[in-house]
Order: sequence, then structure tokens, then C-alpha cells
Amino acid sequence: MGAFKRLMSYEEALSAVCAARIPLASRDVATTQALGCLMAEDVIATADSPPFDRAAMDGYAVRAADTFAATAGAPVTLPLVASLAAGDVPSQALHAGEAMRIMTGAQMPPGADAVVMQEHAVEVAGSVRMTAPVVPLTHVSQRGEDIAAGATVLAAGSRLSPHAVALLISLGVRSCRVWTMPSVAVVTTGDELVAFGDEVPAGKIIDSNGPMLSAILGRCGCPVTYRAHARDSPDEITAALAAARAAADIVLVTGGSSFGERDYAQRLVAGLDIHGVAIKPGKPFGFAPGPVPVFLLSGYPVAAFVQIYLFVIPYLEALTGATILSRVTLPLAEGVSTSLGRAEVVRASVRDGTVVPLRRSGSSRLTSLAWAEGYVLSSPLREGMGEGDKYLFTSFLE
Amino acid sequence: MGAFKRLMSYEEALSAVCAARIPLASRDVATTQALGCLMAEDVIATADSPPFDRAAMDGYAVRAADTFAATAGAPVTLPLVASLAAGDVPSQALHAGEAMRIMTGAQMPPGADAVVMQEHAVEVAGSVRMTAPVVPLTHVSQRGEDIAAGATVLAAGSRLSPHAVALLISLGVRSCRVWTMPSVAVVTTGDELVAFGDEVPAGKIIDSNGPMLSAILGRCGCPVTYRAHARDSPDEITAALAAARAAADIVLVTGGSSFGERDYAQRLVAGLDIHGVAIKPGKPFGFAPGPVPVFLLSGYPVAAFVQIYLFVIPYLEALTGATILSRVTLPLAEGVSTSLGRAEVVRASVRDGTVVPLRRSGSSRLTSLAWAEGYVLSSPLREGMGEGDKYLFTSFLE
Repeated sequence: MGAFKRLMSYEEALSAVCAARIPLASRDVATTQALGCLMAEDVIATADSPPFDRAAMDGYAVRAADTFAATAGAPVTLPLVASLAAGDVPSQALHAGEAMRIMTGAQMPPGADAVVMQEHAVEVAGSVRMTAPVVPLTHVSQRGEDIAAGATVLAAGSRLSPHAVALLISLGVRSCRVWTMPSVAVVTTGDELVAFGDEVPAGKIIDSNGPMLSAILGRCGCPVTYRAHARDSPDEITAALAAARAAADIVLVTGGSSFGERDYAQRLVAGLDIHGVAIKPGKPFGFAPGPVPVFLLSGYPVAAFVQIYLFVIPYLEALTGATILSRVTLPLAEGVSTSLGRAEVVRASVRDGTVVPLRRSGSSRLTSLAWAEGYVLSSPLREGMGEGDKYLFTSFLE
Repeated sequence: MGAFKRLMSYEEALSAVCAARIPLASRDVATTQALGCLMAEDVIATADSPPFDRAAMDGYAVRAADTFAATAGAPVTLPLVASLAAGDVPSQALHAGEAMRIMTGAQMPPGADAVVMQEHAVEVAGSVRMTAPVVPLTHVSQRGEDIAAGATVLAAGSRLSPHAVALLISLGVRSCRVWTMPSVAVVTTGDELVAFGDEVPAGKIIDSNGPMLSAILGRCGCPVTYRAHARDSPDEITAALAAARAAADIVLVTGGSSFGERDYAQRLVAGLDIHGVAIKPGKPFGFAPGPVPVFLLSGYPVAAFVQIYLFVIPYLEALTGATILSRVTLPLAEGVSTSLGRAEVVRASVRDGTVVPLRRSGSSRLTSLAWAEGYVLSSPLREGMGEGDKYLFTSFLE
């Protein structure tokens, strides 16, 4: 029987994991199909937005200079030579001394440089009377003022949100280059596990790790291309590992990561560069780099979950340059007792801009996850976390 | 030509919108299919978790009382009568003066009440020698300690997250009652709009509202069951509104919400209880309650987007009792100039636990959304927002 000879610090382990890059493919996807995808390249505007100078208000297109002399006592009256609605193409230019009726969103006629709001003018017998001047560009949305052709619309690593989709569509960007997220194999091990839906004999528990990992990976955009459960048998585990490596870009194995008699997985995963990290829960984390990296996770669901957040998702972030997890620095609402020498994953919620630690924890407690919104990590160099101290709060994926 | 006779305050308008409830159906969904769904009822645990007392460490199951006298000078030695691995069913009880080898996750044998860690014991010729006492329940995960049968696992209104799925699965909860989110019809209006992918003639712009609204509604779990574009023609708009009402639980109309000559929508939507709200952008918001409520949104994409966040999503939250948007109270990193008399939607990002307002705004600027993470709302009762003042920051859906 072995033991962890040396626990690696979280930072050291994370940096070793993230250094084990695998090549990631990218592909062109139609913008309308790319919602939620991570951009593999900067998206460059191919057109100006707005595409032309346009009226930002209903009113009258004019040359501002023609209004400069207008006052309440000496109004300026200009003849209305045309009317422009949104979607119209101006059929004539506006000359000095003329005005055109114009609707919000309509293209400005050549020659006009300002819009007088309808509330500030009076229409009289084919003319418009103004009692105050406007300066050039008043109520005009200028061509390219939102974004100009050639400018970077979205940086590589951005996730395509609904409003980013709208921006790309408004610019006529028909497709964008997105990361093809790595495929993942999930192997759960343990004689005690039965599949959800099956009878649960005495002494056994339902395998919740498999569905949980699949759900989280789905949220990250990673397809699960292989899924197996292996009993505590070296042959079964070896066969599942081989099949997993053949079927996916990354392998996750749960269970057998520690040093019990039946902890076969840690013996069977070749090339474990990391095994044992100074975190709680989740200490028996293992990682083997290579063409198909293997993440060795705990059998305990809470520990496996924490290891996904501390290692697997940051690895995906390193591969893509994207931010998958939402993180915000906030003060603690109350102190937490933690130990020197390890980083503790303190499950918590956010209330009134502060991090409220959850009282119940322990690595067997799934409720400590389901009832929390995220976590903060304690420092291994300090005992306890003080009320009011600021920590990076990481939200769980919903 | 009309004008907004009176602008309603945002609070008043929101409360009127949320009061116009429509009946919402719920349905039973298999837990494995319910990821992201909103719970329509509390989920009650039907079993204990863990389902039995089990070892939390590899070691030796004992009666704690048998170890009380153990010291380094006078170790206690107990005969090993069995060995239990995870998934095993204990075939015999543990009697006074006995020990059993036990692995993490294995069911505790009847009669045992503690586990001595293997690191704190030595196995010698079929016996185990201990040099320190343990108290009852040491390294034992007790049946039901995570959650007991009959307790509430998830409250109505919760969204089923990946880790909540794991919790329900571990408890053997096979299905849960979730809200059937209302179906939505999206009608965009305006002569200036052309569909994404079509040729864009001079004076026209691409319709980005339709795809944006569909994407946001999808993120909220609402199916878009009807989608149409109507030109600025009363007949076309009337026909589209009728078809929309027949096809969906809720109707969203964009464009024609103000008082321009061609703003037909605001005249054609019957029963507008709200029209004109003291917000910026998004002032010409309208709402008609009824069996099929109609939200009248701006044609400007940024204003329409803001109205979705200020009214439509909160309405969905009111219908379901769920929290769809993530909100956190944070201090402003810098002051913002805002006007009295209206609530301004200040687009912003979060850095180091503070809200950093985006410099570029204006309702024509889609980049002000795409480059922001969310927004804070100014108070209509106060001019300006001060550095360090705390505001509720609402994150955009990703």
C-alpha cells in the first residue's frame, strides 16, 4: 500500500496541467448556429455599422448652418422638398435652404448634416419652421460610429452571446471561426456503483458522477464521445482506459485515485505526472499528460466536482484562451476556519455583494454543492479566512 | 402625431407587467433530461443519502469503545474477522473485540461505529494493532447525513444545474416536475429591415432583433413558435399580430413603438396598459396584458435588448418564481453622469469586485452590449452615480 509522497500545491499542479496542451481544431460556423461557441480568431467587421448616416429621431433633415440664425423671435422656415422613411433610399440630395421630413432609421440625404426633432419644429404649408439652431450631427447616427469596417468586433476567446450574435448579424458577418471543443471520455470505476435507473442492491450506490460530468462537459461545449463504467477489476479498467483513449481527445476517470487496496485506476493510468494535490476536498487528484491527457478524479462526487472546477475547466480555458467560468472578487461575509498547508474549497453563495460560506460541507455532501452558487479557495499559507477579506468567488455553471 | 403623455416609472411599469400573469403548465421530466429546467415544485428526497453508514477512509471498522485504552505504550490489538470493499454487503456483524478491514465507501458492518485510518494502525498476523483511541463516528459517513428522506432537496423555482442533477440521481429521484416555459412569438416590423443572408439594398439594414430575441428566449428555455417580419403596413402588422397571438403564449413585437408617422405597431396593439417608461434607452416600451400578453419593444436593437432584460425576463421570473438572471450588489469603480427623472441602463463590466461602466453607449451601439458583461440601473431620483456607491449589477445571459 502506498501513500502520497509529496502533495503538490494547487498552483503548481494547475500550471502543470495547463502546460500539457493538446492541439485544438477550429472550424467555420454560420453565425446563426454559433451561439455559445468560443471564438478561435478575432472577428473583424467587414462593413460599417450603421452602414450609412441615418436619422436617430423623427424630424427634419437640414444643413445645420441653415438653422444657426433661428431664434424664437426670428424663426427660420425651410421648404420641405421630400420625405424619407426608414428603408427609403434618398432619391435627391438636400441643397442649402432646404429641409426634408425624415423618420428614425432613415438614411440621411446627401448634403444634410443634422436632424431637427419634430418636437422642436412646426410644419406649415409645405415648410418647416424652427425656433432654435442645431449643430452639425445633431440626432444623426454616423456611418461606422458603432463599429467601422476593419475593426475587431470580438476578440479570440470570446463566447458568442445572444447580443454578440446580434452584433455580428447587423454587420453581415455570415460565419465565424470557432474552437472545436475537445471530445471527452468519461470512465467511472467502482464495484459499489450501479447505473441510475437500475435496481440498487444493499451496499451499492447510484453512479451520479457519470451524469454530472457529462452535464458539466455539455455546458462547456465538449461532446462526451465515450462513456463506460468499470468494476474494480484491473482488466476492466485497462480495457475501458484503452477504449476511452481511442475515442476521445481527453479522458476523465473517477474512482480508484487514492491508495486503497482496490484503487486500481491510479496504478493503471500510465505516466501520472501529478498525483496528490494539497486541496480539500479533492486531494487524490491525478493527471497524466500525453497525446490523450488523462484526468484522474475522486470517486466521491463532491471531490470529483471540485476537481473538474479546479483543473478540467481551467484546462479547457487554457486550450481556448476563453473564460468559461465567471469569477468575481468579493469580501467574505463571515470568517471561515481553514487549515494551513492546503487550499480548501469553501462552498458559498453571494448575498448583498458578499460571499456567504455554506455551513455544511464535507466531501460526501452533495447538498453542499447543490445549495451553493460557487466557491472561494483558501490560501495554504494562512490559517483561517477573515470576515471582510477579499477572495475570488467562482460561480458554478448552471 | 402623438407623444408619450406620461412616462411611467420603471418600478411601476415592471410591477404592472409582472401582475399580468398567464397560467403556466408544468410537466414531469426524467431527471437525466431536466438539466437547465426550472422546478415547478419542491423536490423531496425519497431516500437517505448516503443510503447507509459507510467508511469515509480506508482502514479498520471497530467498536470505538474497544480502542479507548489504546496508547503507544499499551497498544490494543484486535483480530481481523473480515474484509469489506466498496459495494460489498457485510455478511456478519462486528462483535466486541473484533475488527474488520474496510475500504472507503464500503457499508459499515452492524456493530461497528468507527473507522481507524490505515495510517494509524499496523496489521500483524491477522490482527490490527492500534496505538491511539478513536471516538464513535470517526471516519464514518452516516446514513442520511447529506440529506434525509422526506427533506426538501431543491426548492420550487430552482434551476436544475449539473450538480443538482447529480444530487437527484444519487437520491434515486427519477423525475421532477418542471415548468413548461411559455412559447413566444417574435414579430419584427420595419421597411428598413432585410433578413440576414439576403442582399442588403441601399438604405436597408439587416434584421438583427429577430435572431437576438430568439437566442435570448432560447437561453431562458422559451420556445419561439412563431417568427415573422412585417413591413410598415397596417395590414401586414395586423395579420402578423393575429397569427402571433394564435401561435404563442406571449408576443414580442419590435419597431413602431414610438410616435413616428410609420409607427403602426403602437396603434395596432390593442389594450396597451403601458406605453412609455422613464428609462434610457428603451423609453417607447409598451405592454398589453390579456390572455396572450404583448410586449411592444423598440426597433433599435440596443433598446429592444434592454427592454428584454428590464421587462420580459423579469416577467418570466415572476411566472416561474425562478431566478433567471444573475445579480450581485457591487460598488462602482468610477462615477457616471446620469439624468434626473429616468432610470439609465449603464452597461458595464466587473473588474476586481467593482462595476466598471463602459464609456461608449448610445442606443444605436450594439458594441456597448457585446463588450459589456451586464448593467446597472441609475436612480431617477438622483443625478449621477457616485464612485464607490453600490448598485445591483445584472449579468447578461451568455
